[in-house]
Amino acid sequence: MSSRLDPVLARLDATGDAALGRLFDLLRIPSISTDPAHAGDCARAADWLARDIMSLGFEAAARPTPGHPMVVGHGGEGARHVLFYGHYDVQPVDPLSLWHRDPFDPALEDTPAGKVIRGRGASDDKGQLMTFLEAARAWIAVHGALPLRVTIFLEGEEESGSPSLVPFLRENRDELTADLALICDTGLFDRDTPAITTMLRGLVGEEVTIRAASRDLHSGMYGGAAQNPVRVLARIIAALHDDEGRVTVPGFYDGVEELPDAIAAQWQGLGFDAEGFLGEVGLSVPAGEAGRSVLESIWSRPTCEANGITGGYAGAGFKTVLPAEAAAKISFRLVAGQDPLKIRENFRAMVRAMLPADCTAEFAGHGAAPASVMAVDDPAFEAARTALSAEWPRPAAFTGSGGSIPVAGYFKTELGMDSLLAGFALDDDMIHSPNEKYDLRSFRKGMRSWARIIDALAG
Amino acid sequence: MSSRLDPVLARLDATGDAALGRLFDLLRIPSISTDPAHAGDCARAADWLARDIMSLGFEAAARPTPGHPMVVGHGGEGARHVLFYGHYDVQPVDPLSLWHRDPFDPALEDTPAGKVIRGRGASDDKGQLMTFLEAARAWIAVHGALPLRVTIFLEGEEESGSPSLVPFLRENRDELTADLALICDTGLFDRDTPAITTMLRGLVGEEVTIRAASRDLHSGMYGGAAQNPVRVLARIIAALHDDEGRVTVPGFYDGVEELPDAIAAQWQGLGFDAEGFLGEVGLSVPAGEAGRSVLESIWSRPTCEANGITGGYAGAGFKTVLPAEAAAKISFRLVAGQDPLKIRENFRAMVRAMLPADCTAEFAGHGAAPASVMAVDDPAFEAARTALSAEWPRPAAFTGSGGSIPVAGYFKTELGMDSLLAGFALDDDMIHSPNEKYDLRSFRKGMRSWARIIDALAG
Repeated sequence: MSSRLDPVLARLDATGDAALGRLFDLLRIPSISTDPAHAGDCARAADWLARDIMSLGFEAAARPTPGHPMVVGHGGEGARHVLFYGHYDVQPVDPLSLWHRDPFDPALEDTPAGKVIRGRGASDDKGQLMTFLEAARAWIAVHGALPLRVTIFLEGEEESGSPSLVPFLRENRDELTADLALICDTGLFDRDTPAITTMLRGLVGEEVTIRAASRDLHSGMYGGAAQNPVRVLARIIAALHDDEGRVTVPGFYDGVEELPDAIAAQWQGLGFDAEGFLGEVGLSVPAGEAGRSVLESIWSRPTCEANGITGGYAGAGFKTVLPAEAAAKISFRLVAGQDPLKIRENFRAMVRAMLPADCTAEFAGHGAAPASVMAVDDPAFEAARTALSAEWPRPAAFTGSGGSIPVAGYFKTELGMDSLLAGFALDDDMIHSPNEKYDLRSFRKGMRSWARIIDALAG
Repeated sequence: MSSRLDPVLARLDATGDAALGRLFDLLRIPSISTDPAHAGDCARAADWLARDIMSLGFEAAARPTPGHPMVVGHGGEGARHVLFYGHYDVQPVDPLSLWHRDPFDPALEDTPAGKVIRGRGASDDKGQLMTFLEAARAWIAVHGALPLRVTIFLEGEEESGSPSLVPFLRENRDELTADLALICDTGLFDRDTPAITTMLRGLVGEEVTIRAASRDLHSGMYGGAAQNPVRVLARIIAALHDDEGRVTVPGFYDGVEELPDAIAAQWQGLGFDAEGFLGEVGLSVPAGEAGRSVLESIWSRPTCEANGITGGYAGAGFKTVLPAEAAAKISFRLVAGQDPLKIRENFRAMVRAMLPADCTAEFAGHGAAPASVMAVDDPAFEAARTALSAEWPRPAAFTGSGGSIPVAGYFKTELGMDSLLAGFALDDDMIHSPNEKYDLRSFRKGMRSWARIIDALAG
């Protein structure tokens, strides 16, 4: 027990309702970064956060970029300098009809598993980033200042490919480089087991539009004579995997290594419930590469998915159109050793090679980030692991993550800075889906967890 | 020259502007049958037509069905009884942004090829059906009555699978059965060559929805472990054709016969400009079955097309969703000998057999009509061919049609009635596409053509 820590934890417990009120204020701002119609909301969220960080006695500002603003703040004092990263932008909310409440009118709801904070961004990532700000607020209220130098760095383009991130890191390299980054955008391993994520998949996003005739045609008049872009696109998507579920883009597996035995053994020990993981979303059979465990498939193997497709008439009823174009959004999740730009190039070449006469393909890239593997021999990792283990019922684990958090890779490549990823989300948080939630327990124990990690890292 | 006919033709020439005004009134009604939001507009169009037919001295009414109304009118006197068929419903107008004027604010426009009537339905089928009503109006104005018994029968569900048609034909069999049906929903062979269409492809419409997880998933968290309905649907669509462009649905070609040599020779003689046909819409290479001419591909070979596809996120930017469902609209164009219901059944069985674990397929049928081949040995066909040849620069031809006009099949199967299909549309009329038009020349000479056919059939 730490006499420095205990009053901070007590204050967090005593002021939880005020913290929740602040989170609700932030959740009410519909900061959907991918939709240009919400640019003003993204700016509002950035301003709200800059003001909140200034209220901690930090110097802070929402700093303009060609896209959405970056929020940067500096405060605290001590030998160690950490940078805390989160993102204030959120995913789109469609299909809106599947939400049981307005996604931007957050509320506490009772569920069989306890109280949850319902709303877009509750878990990804507004609720998570506020756990750190609230821990800092309580620490400062009790002790006057943080025991570490802290830079707070909040992005507004994480859900839309982070186009401004690398230029901003390069332009502000000295200001943003700390001893270690703390990133709060990951989850617990399970309800009782905290996790420090040490392997993150990278992400390449591609949008491909296939065009044939100069206009939509009547499928009776031209069907059988004219190319159909929906059929061409379907053939391309179907060809992206072989019968064993392996991705067929040339060179896709170049540099991909098998999981080291030690890590494989650690994962085995986690007792991952693959049946429950799939069953929770109505599935029963792993759909990935033949011969791979579910945990391998989502943590340590690269994948390719079609995230969206559109073409022709999709309204009510039927229209016998032979469409002039069809488009798909395709993403690749990458693991260590894969080169995002080479995979993009090989994908585009593969699509072009499959185009029949009279068809063209147009490509738009949406982000290209490599995978990250963290340096877990930094003693800060073990200190944080011990701090998390003190807060939660079971000891913290080093884990992988299927999701991509490209910023961790950029912190390493642009600033030479390692990242410690800890977060409190759960698999059933419905992030990117209707009815996103964050357990009130995640929020409360998340704030306490950061107070413990701040204490541990200050030494 | 017929002394009975000439004053009718003269009156049509003298009253063309008034006829155009009536057509514009009808075109202003947005009677999109496939969209439930336009049900009221369909009813308005039916009422407008019933009133117009009554103004010819016919008994007429818009008759309710479970879908959109049928307009039925009776008039004229003579030994021969013909039924004239057209449809007052139109296709949806999306993408609206590609129209250069409001689709339901018709206007005459000057083009390099002459004046055109621009607006949704100008060609398909309001402009065409009005050519007959105007010919009848002029005949009645000159002679007091038509020289034939005429039943006018106008449908409002042709663009949405005609769900009420067969029940209505069955319930009103005696009233609607005539010696011959006249159907005005086809085109000229080319600008100077009229056509009587004697082979019509049938149509089976299918909507298939593939579902996997119980909700949209995060492609990072679940990608590699969960089934992706977009990928499953793409594999199904890709599998519908082999590398030679042949449809792979089991039994699809059962009963399909090669074109008789005599008809093949007649088609050869038409001097069809395949390069121009494709070039007009920006294409250059026939995309149908290997080894088939373009005319065969669109007139006498069965096809399968994807008319629309949707799934996942298709908005601006990128969303790394793994969608819970994806859907496609698939249509089959059928030729003589194919059984629509058997093809539907075999398609559904093929899809079900391709479903991986955890995936389901839901089907909705949108019409299932067989192909039609007309009895051209009826002397009425030769009489009509002669009448058309007198109006247009080149002699009329017996042709095929890629489009489906299921009503011709139903007239045969339900009422035992053959159909004579003549129409004045052109391949560049943009039917089912933005900026649909009907040449003013088609409208004017179309009216005159029906006056000539009425004269010829009255004997």
